[in-house]
Amino acid sequence: MGKIMFLRNSWYVAAFDSEIGQTPLARTLLNEPIVLYRTADGTPVALEDRCCHRALPLSLGKVVGENIQCGYHGLVFDTTGACVSVPGQSKIPPGAVVRSYPLVERWNWVWIWMGDPALADNTLIPNWWWADHPDWVSAKGRGGEPLHVKCNYELITDNLMDVSHLSYVHASSVGVAAIAENAPRTERSDRQVVASRWVPNKPAAPFYQKAGNFKGNVDRWLVTVTDLPCFTMNDAGCVDAGTDAREGHRDRGVDIRVLNAPTPETETATHYFYQHVRSFEVGNPEWDDIFRTQFTEVFLEDKAVLEAQQAALSRKPDGPQIDINDDVPGIAVRRALRHLIQAEQASNDNTAAAAE
Amino acid sequence: MGKIMFLRNSWYVAAFDSEIGQTPLARTLLNEPIVLYRTADGTPVALEDRCCHRALPLSLGKVVGENIQCGYHGLVFDTTGACVSVPGQSKIPPGAVVRSYPLVERWNWVWIWMGDPALADNTLIPNWWWADHPDWVSAKGRGGEPLHVKCNYELITDNLMDVSHLSYVHASSVGVAAIAENAPRTERSDRQVVASRWVPNKPAAPFYQKAGNFKGNVDRWLVTVTDLPCFTMNDAGCVDAGTDAREGHRDRGVDIRVLNAPTPETETATHYFYQHVRSFEVGNPEWDDIFRTQFTEVFLEDKAVLEAQQAALSRKPDGPQIDINDDVPGIAVRRALRHLIQAEQASNDNTAAAAE
Amino acid sequence: MGKIMFLRNSWYVAAFDSEIGQTPLARTLLNEPIVLYRTADGTPVALEDRCCHRALPLSLGKVVGENIQCGYHGLVFDTTGACVSVPGQSKIPPGAVVRSYPLVERWNWVWIWMGDPALADNTLIPNWWWADHPDWVSAKGRGGEPLHVKCNYELITDNLMDVSHLSYVHASSVGVAAIAENAPRTERSDRQVVASRWVPNKPAAPFYQKAGNFKGNVDRWLVTVTDLPCFTMNDAGCVDAGTDAREGHRDRGVDIRVLNAPTPETETATHYFYQHVRSFEVGNPEWDDIFRTQFTEVFLEDKAVLEAQQAALSRKPDGPQIDINDDVPGIAVRRALRHLIQAEQASNDNTAAAAE
Repeated sequence: MGKIMFLRNSWYVAAFDSEIGQTPLARTLLNEPIVLYRTADGTPVALEDRCCHRALPLSLGKVVGENIQCGYHGLVFDTTGACVSVPGQSKIPPGAVVRSYPLVERWNWVWIWMGDPALADNTLIPNWWWADHPDWVSAKGRGGEPLHVKCNYELITDNLMDVSHLSYVHASSVGVAAIAENAPRTERSDRQVVASRWVPNKPAAPFYQKAGNFKGNVDRWLVTVTDLPCFTMNDAGCVDAGTDAREGHRDRGVDIRVLNAPTPETETATHYFYQHVRSFEVGNPEWDDIFRTQFTEVFLEDKAVLEAQQAALSRKPDGPQIDINDDVPGIAVRRALRHLIQAEQASNDNTAAAAE
Repeated sequence: MGKIMFLRNSWYVAAFDSEIGQTPLARTLLNEPIVLYRTADGTPVALEDRCCHRALPLSLGKVVGENIQCGYHGLVFDTTGACVSVPGQSKIPPGAVVRSYPLVERWNWVWIWMGDPALADNTLIPNWWWADHPDWVSAKGRGGEPLHVKCNYELITDNLMDVSHLSYVHASSVGVAAIAENAPRTERSDRQVVASRWVPNKPAAPFYQKAGNFKGNVDRWLVTVTDLPCFTMNDAGCVDAGTDAREGHRDRGVDIRVLNAPTPETETATHYFYQHVRSFEVGNPEWDDIFRTQFTEVFLEDKAVLEAQQAALSRKPDGPQIDINDDVPGIAVRRALRHLIQAEQASNDNTAAAAE
Repeated sequence: MGKIMFLRNSWYVAAFDSEIGQTPLARTLLNEPIVLYRTADGTPVALEDRCCHRALPLSLGKVVGENIQCGYHGLVFDTTGACVSVPGQSKIPPGAVVRSYPLVERWNWVWIWMGDPALADNTLIPNWWWADHPDWVSAKGRGGEPLHVKCNYELITDNLMDVSHLSYVHASSVGVAAIAENAPRTERSDRQVVASRWVPNKPAAPFYQKAGNFKGNVDRWLVTVTDLPCFTMNDAGCVDAGTDAREGHRDRGVDIRVLNAPTPETETATHYFYQHVRSFEVGNPEWDDIFRTQFTEVFLEDKAVLEAQQAALSRKPDGPQIDINDDVPGIAVRRALRHLIQAEQASNDNTAAAAE
């Protein structure tokens, strides 16, 4: 999987907004230990989770007003990561600081910028407006916490970009054999890859039939949009066959968006954040439950496959792999992400060279 | 323990025949992940347990007639390992193949050839006819599955070739102090080492006394035959003292064969296959139970010793070791096996050089 | 943490005296597997816990009189580590010996010399006479066994040398905020560092108030003496404020010595031996219980901090660390220990060079 795994100058989802409060939350993101908490007025804060004195995780300390105090020797750090108090002495030693990270609260999540804070650009957060729109309702993952998957995050993107696996991994819920029979169309732009499949005039998959109570066959769409590095939106649904959903007439059917943000914990483990948003049964909490419980089962089917796949890849990293037609969208994402990471690396190298 | 651990061009026991069926069985042999299944007509098949597309173990898929289908994207492989179907496309990509392994069903086990299939030679399977003979009956290990031991497989051969350990590890069942007092005789031939001990005119060990209900002392024999690389047959029994068992008059006593086939999983873990076959109480299932339960206890005593030994060796691989007289048979096996492995390596190197 | 972790030519606590008996005790010290047992007359013995024949730990064998017998093939070793019997043969092979270690029983513990036996010097054991004196009584750790802590042993010394952590880690028992407010005084000598704090005229911490039932404020002392490499004695107590404990008038108050001997198991794990000795409530077993149970809670608070600290250091060994005023005593110990270890290394190198 190469040497450089992560795009640093990017947002990633750090937590569901409801996960962060006055009790410090420890979470490793892109191999970095981070502590998350909210100040008294609710502002979220992200700091390096390692005291600059003797390395104890600050998450074992406590929040005191705006600040966090280490649980070992009582050093206090403010929201910028600066040490503002050392017990028993009036002077703060030089270098007494921990790293702080820019945060943005959006789409029920707290997003963290893992690279140079000066480059943090809110417009790079995908516009997943459905998560907040009154005509749509979100079932927040498994109830407000990420799913931990022991695989590299790009395997999750591969999985999401190639919906042909629904026919084999999820045959009992959202898969039908017809999906794989219809090749995807792939569109590429600067930081985005779109894969579209249309499955016309087929019986609805079990889940969709339950949701839509269709009388006959349906036209189904599966459109997957990945914004780099790893934000994948599934636009999925179906309407009565022949009512031309391609032209946007979807309101008579079942219309879902799945918002996926797999955040790397390490190179082989991922905090998988997801939300299902829907425009049907919006006021019906029973459907929140269905997404939380039934789709958790679907995602656990993926987790089993992804972890077995990662174990096989870790066991023999250089083993041969062949590609098939359905891999085109996933390969497009991988290639574009490689380019971004290489560009970031080259830029870092130039900066380092100029500084010498 | 050196660089080259395994003789590749050899049979190994892959499974009890009863372990393989329509549900794929995953098993790692000599560091290679393998899936075992039977076709609709019962023929056993062994394939590399890694889809050539995206590396998912095929054992997570399902058997479809003669073939096996990957559980991720539905690729289908035939019994030779060739991919014969890719969903959504008519053309099979070049290189879409997984490795297949020759299999032979014999002696209640399925044997696998781990090297070059062109060299697979059925005559190299040891002639353990007792396992199938009507005058003998087999208690199949612990009931048809191997014992997993976290040690290198050669430590098991050492253990079997030096029965002096019975006096210390198995004092309560099959050991008596007199064993160690009688030195073994060692005979070497091309791919075989035989160690023989005779323990004349002593009280029977607890297990043998129970089996034979002897009135007085017994003459006991412990003959161990190892066919390389790791097939060890214990010929063990006793008769009334002075009735000259050396001449073959054993039918009045207790006569057992233990068939041992420790198959390497990795360099430090082994699937230990064994069967006890006997020519007494042949129709008595109570004695099957005794072998299954009581000898499982004996083998678990060995497992505890072997795993502690492996842990000590792994901790300090180059620590000094002295040899004693009882090690002669085990050292003979190790030396012969080293020669075979080196010859195989030299042959591979020559082949590689000729191909350049 | 550098390449050389351990001072070899030193005593370390191997076990509580009550831990060693006729059943062999296996314990890893300074990365070396060791078996401890007592001969029939009660003399403690320490041998390399690896049979020189086939590496089985001798601790899986049994004590036979003065000697220990391997549980695999029955070799017998005497108290010097020499093999004195090999079953089935009259001659002992050359090199049939395991390492033996000098032991001394003192202060309720058995001390082991881990370096060159010729250099073993009993005067290097700290003079912790309170452990045996009739005016004092010892609560032996958690009841006669060490606490296992997954951290480097020097982190424990740091912890003990900087009592300012009491205010944060042990606020509910022995900590008060005033401790950190009073800077320590540090005294250095050849193999010893002493850190002293006086906390005058403050309310007693909860534990001390319970022990001393003071009417008003107290003068408290916290004196920590580390004898290299890792023997730390806490001299802790308090008396009514203004009664001048500095001059030794302590008998009217609460007077405790904590004897700490963290013995390295590996570079990142420690057998933490400790005893609390006291000169009050000497004949009251209830106070033994209080030390065993209540202080075990205190030490478990330390264990949680120390293990999290070690995990953070292992994750990023070269991460920056700043020092604060309270670190002066701990840094003095680390520096002195580094000098001792380097001197030992240099001496070994010279010896090796002279031998060439």
